[in-house]
Amino acid sequence: LKKSTTATRILLILLSLFLFTQVFGLSSVAQVVLGKGNSGHYLSINMAFGIGATLGVYAAGGVSGAHLNAAITITQCVLGNISWKTLAAYIIGQFLGSFMAAATVFALYYDAIYDYTKGNLTVSGPTATAMIFSTYPAPNVSLQGFTATVMLILGVMVIHDEKNNAAIKGAQPVLTGLLVLGIGLGMGLNTGYAINPSRDLPPRVFTAIAGWGMAVFTGEHSWWWVPVAAPILGCLFGVFIYKLFIDFHNHPVLENEHEKEQAGMETSRL
Amino acid sequence: LKKSTTATRILLILLSLFLFTQVFGLSSVAQVVLGKGNSGHYLSINMAFGIGATLGVYAAGGVSGAHLNAAITITQCVLGNISWKTLAAYIIGQFLGSFMAAATVFALYYDAIYDYTKGNLTVSGPTATAMIFSTYPAPNVSLQGFTATVMLILGVMVIHDEKNNAAIKGAQPVLTGLLVLGIGLGMGLNTGYAINPSRDLPPRVFTAIAGWGMAVFTGEHSWWWVPVAAPILGCLFGVFIYKLFIDFHNHPVLENEHEKEQAGMETSRL
Amino acid sequence: LKKSTTATRILLILLSLFLFTQVFGLSSVAQVVLGKGNSGHYLSINMAFGIGATLGVYAAGGVSGAHLNAAITITQCVLGNISWKTLAAYIIGQFLGSFMAAATVFALYYDAIYDYTKGNLTVSGPTATAMIFSTYPAPNVSLQGFTATVMLILGVMVIHDEKNNAAIKGAQPVLTGLLVLGIGLGMGLNTGYAINPSRDLPPRVFTAIAGWGMAVFTGEHSWWWVPVAAPILGCLFGVFIYKLFIDFHNHPVLENEHEKEQAGMETSRL
Amino acid sequence: LKKSTTATRILLILLSLFLFTQVFGLSSVAQVVLGKGNSGHYLSINMAFGIGATLGVYAAGGVSGAHLNAAITITQCVLGNISWKTLAAYIIGQFLGSFMAAATVFALYYDAIYDYTKGNLTVSGPTATAMIFSTYPAPNVSLQGFTATVMLILGVMVIHDEKNNAAIKGAQPVLTGLLVLGIGLGMGLNTGYAINPSRDLPPRVFTAIAGWGMAVFTGEHSWWWVPVAAPILGCLFGVFIYKLFIDFHNHPVLENEHEKEQAGMETSRL
Repeated sequence: LKKSTTATRILLILLSLFLFTQVFGLSSVAQVVLGKGNSGHYLSINMAFGIGATLGVYAAGGVSGAHLNAAITITQCVLGNISWKTLAAYIIGQFLGSFMAAATVFALYYDAIYDYTKGNLTVSGPTATAMIFSTYPAPNVSLQGFTATVMLILGVMVIHDEKNNAAIKGAQPVLTGLLVLGIGLGMGLNTGYAINPSRDLPPRVFTAIAGWGMAVFTGEHSWWWVPVAAPILGCLFGVFIYKLFIDFHNHPVLENEHEKEQAGMETSRL
Repeated sequence: LKKSTTATRILLILLSLFLFTQVFGLSSVAQVVLGKGNSGHYLSINMAFGIGATLGVYAAGGVSGAHLNAAITITQCVLGNISWKTLAAYIIGQFLGSFMAAATVFALYYDAIYDYTKGNLTVSGPTATAMIFSTYPAPNVSLQGFTATVMLILGVMVIHDEKNNAAIKGAQPVLTGLLVLGIGLGMGLNTGYAINPSRDLPPRVFTAIAGWGMAVFTGEHSWWWVPVAAPILGCLFGVFIYKLFIDFHNHPVLENEHEKEQAGMETSRL
Repeated sequence: LKKSTTATRILLILLSLFLFTQVFGLSSVAQVVLGKGNSGHYLSINMAFGIGATLGVYAAGGVSGAHLNAAITITQCVLGNISWKTLAAYIIGQFLGSFMAAATVFALYYDAIYDYTKGNLTVSGPTATAMIFSTYPAPNVSLQGFTATVMLILGVMVIHDEKNNAAIKGAQPVLTGLLVLGIGLGMGLNTGYAINPSRDLPPRVFTAIAGWGMAVFTGEHSWWWVPVAAPILGCLFGVFIYKLFIDFHNHPVLENEHEKEQAGMETSRL
Repeated sequence: LKKSTTATRILLILLSLFLFTQVFGLSSVAQVVLGKGNSGHYLSINMAFGIGATLGVYAAGGVSGAHLNAAITITQCVLGNISWKTLAAYIIGQFLGSFMAAATVFALYYDAIYDYTKGNLTVSGPTATAMIFSTYPAPNVSLQGFTATVMLILGVMVIHDEKNNAAIKGAQPVLTGLLVLGIGLGMGLNTGYAINPSRDLPPRVFTAIAGWGMAVFTGEHSWWWVPVAAPILGCLFGVFIYKLFIDFHNHPVLENEHEKEQAGMETSRL
């Protein structure tokens, strides 16, 4: 029975990441790039990733929606919250779901990509298309992935902190989507926002196979590892910050219901 | 009494599809095309179809909101969930609602269409207006309708799967709207997103009658049947995939409340 | 005591309309017009009116939010649901709130309007500013106000029909906002969307006084009465349609809970 | 124990303001300015501040979300709702959180700012970047900050007024976000919308230190004090208006449940 549970969890993660977070996200980039501004703007991409996150978290259902991101899964393993076996299971589900999403978007836009590039699949240049699938960090935004993931994990923890505000459980997936949308609105300059290794590496491997070649790893300063490493470091740093500054005080914010009531009433007492 | 129920269901489907899904969607395309970029962008169309889906599902009320789409209704009949008689009732409601919506948008924008086209109603060319009412798939996005409907039906099933996550019932129409918005953001390049035969065929019949002539069927590679057939095939394929990979395991994900609790707590235990 | 209740209701309607529906809406038009495309697009206006409607309905609180629109208030009086005295009270509140909103937006953008127009306040021409406050229907969209209000009232009734779907009460103001946003996305070509006499006439009277002169009534075919009359006629027609086609069947859709359950389950049985 | 509560409250305010309201808001301005129109539009900024407000209010949790704005905190102290000690604690948390946010956005976009400005950090001119961090009110929108804050506080009070509509508690942070978004859509012409001293002054102090020099105080008519003073005056005026016109009547709107029911039913009785 336990084996079946693990298999189902992998499948749920795979499907949730594949369907929403990735196909929605990657296809929106494709539509903006290939549509040359007639079928969407940068804001479309921000919205698509936000919607993908919200639907993905709902779809993941029983499994914590946070496991759609390898950086968070790894952090939870480091903290001892999940076993190595569970870690492996989630990472496999994330990789396969994300890889399949890249393949799906490639199939979906196969003809349009060939029309746009005249069959010349490149990482840079005027008809570059590799950035449809993975992010390519420029030198002048090197800190972006790290900082954005610190924001992400702090946001995720605040949203899910039951000691802080227990009333928002039903709204958590929507708030997570707004968080991802907000990050995209402010931390996606030039290269997209690298906040999830599971979003970035599998599609990069796919593009290497599908015709863009090893340039997806060697191109743009060989910085393919930045969107993998930066979110993991950012996530660990964010958890450290949160534990140090928030959990250290152990949240005795509002010990009794009466005090809570009082705080809530302040505004209406204006 | 039963007859009255069937009639009311047809009327509800007719009104829901007419009012929201179709008039909202089609009129937003009209406003973007006829407004020449001053009264909306591509994003407006994505939002209008998403809002239309959300309001349509709420409006359909007692009847399952999924019956605003002939592809889903047909799939349910194939699976034996609804009778042939119910199928016929829903299809009639869908056709009439969608046809009436096309007529309404035509009446609403009659003068503006004539100003824009100088009275020359065409399927292609610089002042083409047929795409206000129906989609015209280009060769380079031939797979779009099929893939987008696979996404749609997988999304609809995940959203409504009570074995997966029972807590989101009240949010289902909003999630369905976000799903349609997300599909539009990523799978609407060039031709709009053909995910619903009920959205496409009745307005096409209307345009054939209203002045565009048989070119709405013969023009653009005579591919009028693609936005009808692709969603139905995509829907059946999506259901097959879901049953094979998800329902096969029968979802024993979280057998007891304790385990569910545990999974939910993982994030806050970070 | 009863008098005080009436006074409070007028004040609530006045404040709700003033604050949200009108100041939000009118100022967003001002920002788009005066910002010359750098401070917002047409979509901003659609969103602002939608947000204004949602917040306005929440703000109106105990009083039905539908009373932010004179067309709906008048229709309710014709149907005998409210007395002539109540009608007068609401209309007064609507007029004052809307007039004050126009004055507020004028004060807010006084300098910017003078910079933009060089002090020449006109209804038409390259630096026309009267459309910040009221709509000016062009001949080629003459049916727009009527049809849009039919949509509005049918939408409002479907959203609030307790016989149809009782579970969405908490979401009604948000759905009303989405309805207004959806109408704006598809039925706002050229002139804005005339769906509310209370939104249109009081600001027009204000502009006549504030420096635009009688041209706000005589300009553009003297069609100032269209945004007043069309919504009222549309509203009455929409109610007639709804009563004829939906209420006539008296909604025995789902007599027992069991059947309702079944309909709801259809999707998950896929 | 009480001391620990105060420290935790300061930390919560600091983190909530830092994370969401400020980093989200400021970084979205940076992305629009530095991205030269390719990475977002004015609407992105409006959305980012709205999302920041929603998430910030959720994150503030037990502490009233209204304390993310010094104007509201000061108004509450003037009204005697919070002590001078609590006022000081909140103001400190607000200042530190906002200052840290400015530093974070500066670090995040350090390279991009230098690429854009060639190292010349200025308040005005074609490559001005100071407005990424603080608002610079132009003469022709001098009333904007005051009026916008009157709207804000009236909106916040209506949203939170439990005597008016008690059913919307769970939706309050989302409504607050919509309120901020709506203000941005209509009252952000030219200079952004100065509705929060905590959003404006600490980043200005940061820019003075970080390389823009005293020009951030002396430049643009030395009006740095307007975004500080206008919101405080606007907030006090708004509270006065609300107390005079709404609270004076003491809201006996709907004395009994029956009458409330009746008002709610009006729409469905149409």
